[in-house]
Amino acid sequence: MSEIVISSLKEFIKREIQPIAEKIDREDYYPRDLVSKMGDLGFLSPLYEGLNLSDTVSIIEEIAKISGSTALIQDAQGELVIEPIRVFGNNKVKREYLDKLTKGKLIGGFGLSEPCCGSDTGKIMTKAEKNGSYWKISGRKMWTTQGLYADVYLIVARTGDPKLRNKTLSVFVVPRSNCIKSNKIEVSGNRGTGTAELEINDCVVEEDNILGDINDGWKVVKYALLVGRVAISAIAIGLAEGSLAEAYEWALNRDIAGTKLIEKQGIQWYFSKNIAYLNAVKSLMREITNDGLENLQKNEDKISSLKFLSSNISQEIIDNSVQIMGGLGYAKGTRTERAYRDIRVTRIGEGTDEVQLNIIYRYLRNKGIESIM
Amino acid sequence: MSEIVISSLKEFIKREIQPIAEKIDREDYYPRDLVSKMGDLGFLSPLYEGLNLSDTVSIIEEIAKISGSTALIQDAQGELVIEPIRVFGNNKVKREYLDKLTKGKLIGGFGLSEPCCGSDTGKIMTKAEKNGSYWKISGRKMWTTQGLYADVYLIVARTGDPKLRNKTLSVFVVPRSNCIKSNKIEVSGNRGTGTAELEINDCVVEEDNILGDINDGWKVVKYALLVGRVAISAIAIGLAEGSLAEAYEWALNRDIAGTKLIEKQGIQWYFSKNIAYLNAVKSLMREITNDGLENLQKNEDKISSLKFLSSNISQEIIDNSVQIMGGLGYAKGTRTERAYRDIRVTRIGEGTDEVQLNIIYRYLRNKGIESIM
Amino acid sequence: MSEIVISSLKEFIKREIQPIAEKIDREDYYPRDLVSKMGDLGFLSPLYEGLNLSDTVSIIEEIAKISGSTALIQDAQGELVIEPIRVFGNNKVKREYLDKLTKGKLIGGFGLSEPCCGSDTGKIMTKAEKNGSYWKISGRKMWTTQGLYADVYLIVARTGDPKLRNKTLSVFVVPRSNCIKSNKIEVSGNRGTGTAELEINDCVVEEDNILGDINDGWKVVKYALLVGRVAISAIAIGLAEGSLAEAYEWALNRDIAGTKLIEKQGIQWYFSKNIAYLNAVKSLMREITNDGLENLQKNEDKISSLKFLSSNISQEIIDNSVQIMGGLGYAKGTRTERAYRDIRVTRIGEGTDEVQLNIIYRYLRNKGIESIM
Amino acid sequence: MSEIVISSLKEFIKREIQPIAEKIDREDYYPRDLVSKMGDLGFLSPLYEGLNLSDTVSIIEEIAKISGSTALIQDAQGELVIEPIRVFGNNKVKREYLDKLTKGKLIGGFGLSEPCCGSDTGKIMTKAEKNGSYWKISGRKMWTTQGLYADVYLIVARTGDPKLRNKTLSVFVVPRSNCIKSNKIEVSGNRGTGTAELEINDCVVEEDNILGDINDGWKVVKYALLVGRVAISAIAIGLAEGSLAEAYEWALNRDIAGTKLIEKQGIQWYFSKNIAYLNAVKSLMREITNDGLENLQKNEDKISSLKFLSSNISQEIIDNSVQIMGGLGYAKGTRTERAYRDIRVTRIGEGTDEVQLNIIYRYLRNKGIESIM
Repeated sequence: MSEIVISSLKEFIKREIQPIAEKIDREDYYPRDLVSKMGDLGFLSPLYEGLNLSDTVSIIEEIAKISGSTALIQDAQGELVIEPIRVFGNNKVKREYLDKLTKGKLIGGFGLSEPCCGSDTGKIMTKAEKNGSYWKISGRKMWTTQGLYADVYLIVARTGDPKLRNKTLSVFVVPRSNCIKSNKIEVSGNRGTGTAELEINDCVVEEDNILGDINDGWKVVKYALLVGRVAISAIAIGLAEGSLAEAYEWALNRDIAGTKLIEKQGIQWYFSKNIAYLNAVKSLMREITNDGLENLQKNEDKISSLKFLSSNISQEIIDNSVQIMGGLGYAKGTRTERAYRDIRVTRIGEGTDEVQLNIIYRYLRNKGIESIM
Repeated sequence: MSEIVISSLKEFIKREIQPIAEKIDREDYYPRDLVSKMGDLGFLSPLYEGLNLSDTVSIIEEIAKISGSTALIQDAQGELVIEPIRVFGNNKVKREYLDKLTKGKLIGGFGLSEPCCGSDTGKIMTKAEKNGSYWKISGRKMWTTQGLYADVYLIVARTGDPKLRNKTLSVFVVPRSNCIKSNKIEVSGNRGTGTAELEINDCVVEEDNILGDINDGWKVVKYALLVGRVAISAIAIGLAEGSLAEAYEWALNRDIAGTKLIEKQGIQWYFSKNIAYLNAVKSLMREITNDGLENLQKNEDKISSLKFLSSNISQEIIDNSVQIMGGLGYAKGTRTERAYRDIRVTRIGEGTDEVQLNIIYRYLRNKGIESIM
Repeated sequence: MSEIVISSLKEFIKREIQPIAEKIDREDYYPRDLVSKMGDLGFLSPLYEGLNLSDTVSIIEEIAKISGSTALIQDAQGELVIEPIRVFGNNKVKREYLDKLTKGKLIGGFGLSEPCCGSDTGKIMTKAEKNGSYWKISGRKMWTTQGLYADVYLIVARTGDPKLRNKTLSVFVVPRSNCIKSNKIEVSGNRGTGTAELEINDCVVEEDNILGDINDGWKVVKYALLVGRVAISAIAIGLAEGSLAEAYEWALNRDIAGTKLIEKQGIQWYFSKNIAYLNAVKSLMREITNDGLENLQKNEDKISSLKFLSSNISQEIIDNSVQIMGGLGYAKGTRTERAYRDIRVTRIGEGTDEVQLNIIYRYLRNKGIESIM
Repeated sequence: MSEIVISSLKEFIKREIQPIAEKIDREDYYPRDLVSKMGDLGFLSPLYEGLNLSDTVSIIEEIAKISGSTALIQDAQGELVIEPIRVFGNNKVKREYLDKLTKGKLIGGFGLSEPCCGSDTGKIMTKAEKNGSYWKISGRKMWTTQGLYADVYLIVARTGDPKLRNKTLSVFVVPRSNCIKSNKIEVSGNRGTGTAELEINDCVVEEDNILGDINDGWKVVKYALLVGRVAISAIAIGLAEGSLAEAYEWALNRDIAGTKLIEKQGIQWYFSKNIAYLNAVKSLMREITNDGLENLQKNEDKISSLKFLSSNISQEIIDNSVQIMGGLGYAKGTRTERAYRDIRVTRIGEGTDEVQLNIIYRYLRNKGIESIM
């Protein structure tokens, strides 16, 4: 990413995000204005603006250092809604939505998970039925980020025999209307992101509103999940770095037993281990993002490895930071206290730890042990 | 503990604590009425009521399963304030305070930690100076549980040469008045416990208000910390058990991939490992509490081991529970979401992990390796 | 255990075991004479001598500090062979074997595992068929400790429909003869214990040689495994302690960067953590052994917890010791180098980690979550 | 690396190394012939042959899959002896030694560690004193791989004021003669590599035999350690991969409870986690090696991270493999049993874990937290 973009991004974060990061969390405040400003500068949709995947994760990581919630909003809007439309939308859909979404004039929500089945997309029960040239959609969705405030949803629905699992899914672009009721789900961290349950009752949309082909929605979902897993890994890493920087500053200045806290070998080794692991996951991240959007599918096992490791390692790093900061790391007002809560979703969202482990195992089974050696 | 006490306790928890556990957390609500009711039934001060240490931790553990905050209030009132007065107070002090504190008519706060130095009591800067037959106390205290609402404080102050560290500390019983300003510290978990910073300006108390002997306050502090570490270990274990029970219930009933979640071997092993570790720390707890109050000092290394392990292992168990419950374990309204935040203080309060490790090492150095074999 | 027994044991270990501990390992040397001497002093069969379970594990632990192999021999002879005969043998069998086995005049081997199925006893394929008043036994056994040198074997064989799994097993006392061929299995640690594969071809024994009832062998096996798991936990703990003591001695004396290694906080914390965990597993051990032989079955989940934790924690402790001792911990001639290899079997033998986890889960499923809280 | 080199390497390993890998370990057999053959094919000194750092680690990793000892020999000869001569030797030294060392006609040993001080080079006590145009060297060295069989040594010696620590070290090329006595040190793993203690008594060498400048030996040592840490990381990774492949093969074929072991979710997740971590360390390895020899110093923190993580993670992977293979993973004759011992040295040699953590911390202190973010 050019130095100019980076420095304008950092300046933006300092000026626009930092001052309200605490408020977003404490008041469960959805920063509508901020989203517009991010849109104006292209930060909501770097891939649409012509930046590459490496740039995209750099932006997300940078934001997450200061505000996990804002980074998650970026992910929900940019990677989970804009990207699928950009890649799989027809011209009509693109014309209608892409510009407004990227500018942050419209808010988007990705409706994938359901109450029944969490990460198990093969069991999706939301149904879309054809009625002349229209489709009528009904069902329920859970954990939709920005779901409370979205103007338009991507709804993954079943359009054929449920026994065919992922082979009878289609993705619909559904503008908000009375047919969708969104119920707030209050969560532990990443507050202010408008997490919601959606009740969808007979929403009617045109054939044009399908992304990709009918019954080929799994391809769209898969793409969104792959990009999304890379994005959420960047959030995890950014959260860890933000917290680590805060804890290091503290350790440098905190008096303890006649010296500075940082002079204690036990404390130094917390930092050393954290950095060692960070170096490894960031290296894996760079390898994946340098390989580009076009190789996401090929890199599926590495992406699942990254998602699994970055979230777990970042949680450990943040936990260490809490410990280093003591009471302060547990008190409201520090990045670390927020990060302790924010990080926890990264091991659950966009495929739990266990889903990633299953994906990696499936890869091993299919490709053989030689493939990873 | 008699079956009658246990069942009346469980009934009490269900009737009085469970319905407001969520409110205590969400609204940072200090349950003044509940404290009185606990006092009426003797739950604030089991040791004063003639129960033993084993019974005491059973009560705390049972409460913590449902509400970590309430358990911490019990600890702050019972183990950190009532106990030192019961053991070290003169008759005048006991007469004046014990009955009201045990009944929950007065609220107490233990003022030990300071902004300067956290767990390092040897550097306490709060000063008490003799002035005729009175003592005048000034200084600042941090992280005092119930500090916001307390009617009476135990204030650990320096009464001699600071270079003598723990040998010139004294503990004063200080009724609240204008001389103490308490500032709320908002924390991540264990909310509703009135955590506060105290600004103490020229509080004047009589000689009688000293617990134990002048300059021998370290003995009082040590006793409070030893009892307190056992108590906070019980909180940790109770939190873990409450969360584990919730996660197990979920796993028993949650459909996943055509079966129940609990049928997955990976999930079963989460439970098995958690139980294995719980069995070990609970065994250590029983050994220490069966050995009784009179052997706390002798068991210092085991108590630090217990404090270190119970808090770390419980954090891991709760983290597993969050993972098993997925989004739900991250959503407000579950015991597990609360426990994820509540548990974190148990690795910081009443001596951090690192302080416990230092105590264990000191024990090794003094007693030799044979002593632990 | 009486002080006299303890001190005579320690004296014995120092005089008889320590000088040959290294040779046993290096030369894969089975210490036949030592076994006789242990028998003479009653160390092979404390339970038979009237000592209790706590004493028994103390003896094993003490031996394992110096020689894991000798402790494993004690386990194989005492807990896996003598104990089942003592508890389930009829008078004839007891008369014939007990005295000689306890004195170490006969060596015993417990033939349970098979090539097919490791820890899965339900699939045992060794068959015993009745022929008049005799039984004829054929099959193969794996990993039999002392198998190479045994004079008498306990052979677990199928005596009914294989589909009934553990319900058609019987345990036979089989004196060695040409019908048994034992093949040496050379292993990484615990060398000199005569680990062997057994090929059993038409061994003929009398009806009297059955321990307990026909088809009720699972009861015998279960008992042996429960006692054996407690014993192997004691081996694990003893190995950890022996290695920890060696590493501590080293750290006390090793110069490093202008000070002693033990002065480094990072090194101190290795010891502190190790001691904390040791305190917990030893506490669990004491609780189980104090509860006595008669409660083994009731304590099955705790025993599996102990087996799982003691072996894993001890492995970690020994690994730390290697690290503290550096090259020396990797060089032949130190207890720690031996312990690094010896300890590894404790997570495999007498039920792997995974078997213990399955047992704990089964307990949870049967007894409910309340049972562990 | 070209496909041709890779396939000829694999063919060579299969034909020449695999058949004697077990013998090298069991008989502590130094494979002199094999070393010559490796030299003939250029495998001892890929960097000298014009291959790059990535190729070099690929060769080491590939060898380590089958024989850790042979890989360590490659490291000792190639990275620790040949490389310093190639980079810092004057023409005379190069002419005399490089061709013979690379061909495996001469064996080399790197004499760095001393009995006094392990990884702490600043305290090296071996002295070199100038005597006319000659230098006379005396001292003791520990843990020199190939030390028992070497024909020529690189000896790091003090050539000035010991208080100046690393600033008064020089590296001498010392041909073997009566002045050097080598004593075998028998070790747990990586057997057959001729680990030795060296007693150096008045060895006399010419001024020409200094690598680099006088008193500037730290530069040579540093270079050797940086290359060596990358090489030992490749050994760790190769050992893990070899063992993982063996365990996977086993799990695929092993019957357990009516199915194959690999069908157990708990077992699958062992593999998944192992692969996730392998992906991350291998990615870090690729990043470092792609950056080339010329950036080793710049990448010091990453190299220490790699060394620390690859050895620890590989140990964990191998430990999992032992567990998956059960008794077999503990029995002689499997790669996994060997790997369990071989891997342990990678956390000790060429800088212990703790040294790597100190290096990473020093980097943090010097470069600031921003440098790692």
